Amino acid sequence: MAKKEPKAGRGLLVDAMEHSFPERPRFEEWRRGGVDCVHITLAIWEDARDTLKVIGKWHRHFEAHGDLIALATSVDDVERIARSGRTAVVFGFQNTSPFEDDIDLVRTFHALGVRIVQLTYNIQNNVANGCWEDNDAGLSKVFGRNVVAEMNKLGMLIDLSHCNERTCFDTIEASSLPVAITHANPSEFVGMEIELKRRNKSTPLIKALAKHGGVIGLSMYPRLMRGGSDSSLKTFCDMLCWTVDLVGVDHGGFGTDLYTGWPEAEIVWWRAGRFARQSPLAISPKFAEWPRWFRSPSDFPKAVEGLAKRGFSRAELDKIIGGNWMRLFGQTWSPAP
Amino acid sequence: MAKKEPKAGRGLLVDAMEHSFPERPRFEEWRRGGVDCVHITLAIWEDARDTLKVIGKWHRHFEAHGDLIALATSVDDVERIARSGRTAVVFGFQNTSPFEDDIDLVRTFHALGVRIVQLTYNIQNNVANGCWEDNDAGLSKVFGRNVVAEMNKLGMLIDLSHCNERTCFDTIEASSLPVAITHANPSEFVGMEIELKRRNKSTPLIKALAKHGGVIGLSMYPRLMRGGSDSSLKTFCDMLCWTVDLVGVDHGGFGTDLYTGWPEAEIVWWRAGRFARQSPLAISPKFAEWPRWFRSPSDFPKAVEGLAKRGFSRAELDKIIGGNWMRLFGQTWSPAP
Repeated sequence: MAKKEPKAGRGLLVDAMEHSFPERPRFEEWRRGGVDCVHITLAIWEDARDTLKVIGKWHRHFEAHGDLIALATSVDDVERIARSGRTAVVFGFQNTSPFEDDIDLVRTFHALGVRIVQLTYNIQNNVANGCWEDNDAGLSKVFGRNVVAEMNKLGMLIDLSHCNERTCFDTIEASSLPVAITHANPSEFVGMEIELKRRNKSTPLIKALAKHGGVIGLSMYPRLMRGGSDSSLKTFCDMLCWTVDLVGVDHGGFGTDLYTGWPEAEIVWWRAGRFARQSPLAISPKFAEWPRWFRSPSDFPKAVEGLAKRGFSRAELDKIIGGNWMRLFGQTWSPAP
Repeated sequence: MAKKEPKAGRGLLVDAMEHSFPERPRFEEWRRGGVDCVHITLAIWEDARDTLKVIGKWHRHFEAHGDLIALATSVDDVERIARSGRTAVVFGFQNTSPFEDDIDLVRTFHALGVRIVQLTYNIQNNVANGCWEDNDAGLSKVFGRNVVAEMNKLGMLIDLSHCNERTCFDTIEASSLPVAITHANPSEFVGMEIELKRRNKSTPLIKALAKHGGVIGLSMYPRLMRGGSDSSLKTFCDMLCWTVDLVGVDHGGFGTDLYTGWPEAEIVWWRAGRFARQSPLAISPKFAEWPRWFRSPSDFPKAVEGLAKRGFSRAELDKIIGGNWMRLFGQTWSPAP
């Protein structure tokens, strides 16, 4: 991995999950917050054809806002783009829906630059089982295992954030490379007094993820967070320290799950896709109010500052704010032949 | 249900599953065999767009071969077409793949005349789990249950032939209407010395199906049949009598699973779809040789004659050769509002 020149006195800052409506004000917030790299979402329920359109739109953004952002498909790209004072955008899916039923589409979307793919979004698909399903079944025996092997071979990072626990354990086992939970919190720290309790991850799972070299991105998303919309910077830093105490300093990072700029109707698409006419979850159909201390990526310096006061060495802090993600990206995007 | 005038001295003959390449010689075989109604397959792995094409092709067949076949979307249609000396074709899917991820497509395909839909073909999809998967998971909690409710509401018969047993039990329970296994055999009768042992159905499942008013169609397909390609008319009649002894005369019928006229390469599509590059099953990649006594629908009179010698009353025989299917079609295609 090429060495990055120190910038603003620290290593690269990576947010492993943001899904804001892509437009210039958002890219400006990334720059104000010193965000070097963001994993964005091309598809929640989109199929192959839908996703081609989304990719086309992003390329228009790269053209129009090339002073702020550029597409990264390798760690060298990320470092080069960060050095140029811009934010590196990593293409990802929150669902295998763009692969539809076709193993050959994994390669096609890799060729289009997709580097991170979550196996399913909340419910059962042909690959995996989501956190809204029971834990009876996990990674599917036929297509699921084919997709994992293909992603390993091509160099795509597997994301398990919205999968059920059995899918997570199955995939950690089935994958020849480390995997990611880009955006979820530890259930044991957060507790079960939150709206989306099945989205967070158990302690045994976080341990298994780390043991196999994976990374978990922690989120300020109020529905996943102790204290909800009232949660504080202190609680977030406590949670990151708790996770580092649990599995060591090489396995935690940021994965905000921040979404801003969407019309509120979008929430129905995220929750119900095309598979239902309304959300199957009995939770608020409104966007959650983000905590006062973190309302946009421009608030990232507060998180970095908060963590800096927790007694980490400079090298440790650099791992947490982005180095762990960069290490995992390097390991999984360029697999040994 | 309108009364059918007796024809050839018996009730309607229904084959609840044939998937031969559609062309005139096949339709002529139906007429020679006295087949009044056939459930055919529009989709194995086809998505919505693919299936629109297949439906268009069938309408060209109805136009070109209207002397032999016509589309039926109600039991009245079936009886009217049969009275006219033609074979009624019932549109069906062997997979929910044409619905893709969209609950609204159930209604669209109902409007196009689709009346029987199998929930999955061998593997896990977003609705159900297939017989090649383990039995850990069944009908999916969110989309699967939505699809079952929508099919019940619109009037589509649910088919469980290639599903795993847990999906079958879940669906029998979840469906407000009786369901079908259009083409599978009883494992207990056939034994496990066959190539596709996971496709046949257990005795507890067949009992549950019947208890809820369903029907199972029995098949001469060698890979599902005791004796394989050497199986005899006697064995087939023994199997049908065994099933009737088990669950009564109202729950068994024909579901040959006959496929003829395809190029042999088609088998790769059936087994591997787009989800793999070769069959995940370690079985012969060749078409099976059908038993000498049943090589085409024109052999149906042998089956009827064989059963007639087993001491059934005329009314009982009429149920078995087609009356049970007609009763189930009537119950499920026109649900009470």
